[in-house]
Amino acid sequence: MPQATLEFDGVRYLDGRASDPRHLGWMRGAPPPPERLVRFEDDRFFTFPQIRWSLSHLRELLPTVNVWRGEGAPSTFGESASIGQEAIDTLAFTDLHGRERRFDESLHDTYTDGILVLYRGRRIYERYFGALQPQVPHACFSITKSYAATLCAALVHDGTLDAQQCIPHWLPEMKNTAYADATLQQVMDMQVGVAYSELYADPAAQIWDYARAGGLRPRPPGWPGPGSLHAFLQTLQAEGAHGEAVAYKTPNTEVMAWVMQRVTGIPLPQMLAERLWSPLGCEQDAYLSVDTAGTAMAGAGLSATLRDLARLGEMMRREGEANGQQVLPAAVIAEIRRGSDPDKFAKAGYTLLPGYSYRSMWWVTHNELDAIEARGIHGQRLYIAPAADMVVARFASHPIAASAANDTITLPAMLALGRMLRDR
Amino acid sequence: MPQATLEFDGVRYLDGRASDPRHLGWMRGAPPPPERLVRFEDDRFFTFPQIRWSLSHLRELLPTVNVWRGEGAPSTFGESASIGQEAIDTLAFTDLHGRERRFDESLHDTYTDGILVLYRGRRIYERYFGALQPQVPHACFSITKSYAATLCAALVHDGTLDAQQCIPHWLPEMKNTAYADATLQQVMDMQVGVAYSELYADPAAQIWDYARAGGLRPRPPGWPGPGSLHAFLQTLQAEGAHGEAVAYKTPNTEVMAWVMQRVTGIPLPQMLAERLWSPLGCEQDAYLSVDTAGTAMAGAGLSATLRDLARLGEMMRREGEANGQQVLPAAVIAEIRRGSDPDKFAKAGYTLLPGYSYRSMWWVTHNELDAIEARGIHGQRLYIAPAADMVVARFASHPIAASAANDTITLPAMLALGRMLRDR
Repeated sequence: MPQATLEFDGVRYLDGRASDPRHLGWMRGAPPPPERLVRFEDDRFFTFPQIRWSLSHLRELLPTVNVWRGEGAPSTFGESASIGQEAIDTLAFTDLHGRERRFDESLHDTYTDGILVLYRGRRIYERYFGALQPQVPHACFSITKSYAATLCAALVHDGTLDAQQCIPHWLPEMKNTAYADATLQQVMDMQVGVAYSELYADPAAQIWDYARAGGLRPRPPGWPGPGSLHAFLQTLQAEGAHGEAVAYKTPNTEVMAWVMQRVTGIPLPQMLAERLWSPLGCEQDAYLSVDTAGTAMAGAGLSATLRDLARLGEMMRREGEANGQQVLPAAVIAEIRRGSDPDKFAKAGYTLLPGYSYRSMWWVTHNELDAIEARGIHGQRLYIAPAADMVVARFASHPIAASAANDTITLPAMLALGRMLRDR
Repeated sequence: MPQATLEFDGVRYLDGRASDPRHLGWMRGAPPPPERLVRFEDDRFFTFPQIRWSLSHLRELLPTVNVWRGEGAPSTFGESASIGQEAIDTLAFTDLHGRERRFDESLHDTYTDGILVLYRGRRIYERYFGALQPQVPHACFSITKSYAATLCAALVHDGTLDAQQCIPHWLPEMKNTAYADATLQQVMDMQVGVAYSELYADPAAQIWDYARAGGLRPRPPGWPGPGSLHAFLQTLQAEGAHGEAVAYKTPNTEVMAWVMQRVTGIPLPQMLAERLWSPLGCEQDAYLSVDTAGTAMAGAGLSATLRDLARLGEMMRREGEANGQQVLPAAVIAEIRRGSDPDKFAKAGYTLLPGYSYRSMWWVTHNELDAIEARGIHGQRLYIAPAADMVVARFASHPIAASAANDTITLPAMLALGRMLRDR
């Protein structure tokens, strides 16, 4: 029987079931056979289908810093007797190519590693595939940005940071860069004119230099590039105006996180632990990748468990409240959920995301569910739909980095699920 | 005021207080100043005084694999009202150089990062210094061996492994090495004749090739040595007879762990989690360093919290019992505590350890406290004294790797403390 495959951009890949890392046997054996090794050095860990294993095992490939959950018992999700798994499994929806799909089958076609659905805070659906388990942190990639920027928005709210100040106010090192006259607000909303390409399909794009500087990709011998995140940021030059259009560029998050740490003196892992992991009652420690100067990668470095990601979503849905306490000010969350200017977002050219805006590193749908999303490459997603009292956390290891490869299925699936919950 | 120093082997080092990593500011700042960076690449992380920081932060420097504590609340230590901290702080003893010392002061002179004393299972003394905190795992170094070999002894006890078999019975890859005719028991008791030097003060000693193969030390560009632990082990050639003398060589532990994993199919981190971390009620996850093939370093790679190390000690003191269940068979622990042949140990030439034997990678004192020790370089120690109902867990970051540098203080301190508890 020929192996089942799916096609993206004209290339065929093993499908979700055929690429299950348990079947392929990555890193199994003592030692694993050479053809089943997943190594950082040769970059194979970032190749499909190896990523189906490595996105649940990043700390085994590179240095990381712990995000401590604190002491005490984790918070619990209530269960809901009124919505069964089968109702969700069999949910029908039409993808953006017009194809009829079932919810459960769509999980395989989006290379899902795990999915958890909360309805009014109760867990109504939770499934794991491949290398992921409930206690295992999975790469969040750019969902890391939403975590960091939510904390930054709280620092603006409490007056620690003035979002209208330009970056060199805190970071004189950045005076001769694109950020010389960029405000913190522009940075948080990704409206900075900076020469930098985030085209994952292009091996020459600067995103790879960023990843090499930050320790998330191997460096070729004698690599002449910047040796740390902070050194990399200081190379970034202006291109175009600030404040006119959304331009999604990961270094903005690193600049923002640098400001946060410079002003508070608190490293990001500690801030995440104290302000989110502990008060949210997370059940496992998380971790962040670090560069050679020990700086945590704020734009992409977080690995967290699916349940702990869902806890963030539920706090966002409840406007900052969790476990009977106001973890973050309601106004901070409300402002994020209100979003920003869709016209500026439209200029970014995301044809699959019509009507969206981007605010404090969250994707604001302005759809009928009032949904906001945190999105990471290879299919990471936190979808919060207040109008449906729904939160969906989803990890994946899709062969294609860009979210567009799974949006055609994921977006209508989320909408269908939210409508079902809203209208029941 | 001149900085306080201590002399070892004719070299002067900042003393315990002056080398406190919080005062020296390693890795502080965003980014840290270049002279305060602790980096893996240039090996500075393994240099004093940087190790005072890095032994509590190894995972931020290299890839690691998690040892999961499982679900559920951690076990609790009772407190003892009858023995105050002051009684221990002021305990007087004479070190092996004849100098009178106080217990609390001796902690600084042994570069202690943390110490926890249990008496009849109750916590009577717990102090942290420098970079260590209760929830932070610290390098255990060769205490890792005692963990692994205790589990191996349990596998022998339950018949999974036959300790009289020679290593190639399970590992045909090792047929052309020193281990061709070495039994598992000889490996567990470090009585293998193998050409390998563990002289830490010698930069040409094979211990450094082992560390480079295992990922615990950086590799120079173009390093021609073996690329993984298993590859390194296959280079080891015979030197002398097996079974005649204790010869402390860390690769023995890797060979033993390889056998364990080959036979059970369970990687060491998972075995530690299931057989020890979870049933002992450990309060934090631990971790192990891994090589590029994902193999955990069984001879030196573990980082654990002080309290969780003490939990192992208490289980050993209670002959395998913890939290109301028999975690390991009493006979396994009894056999370890009974020790081995002191005559074979004497040949190893440890002048500070007269009368000791070595059994299943534990150091058996045969002293008046019936004490056994797990020992790791730079001052790591688990001291279990059944005759005094005492367990002492101690982490340190001593400038000198070899335990002899702190034994002159530590051994009489443990004996004095044990006598005080026994005779009260």
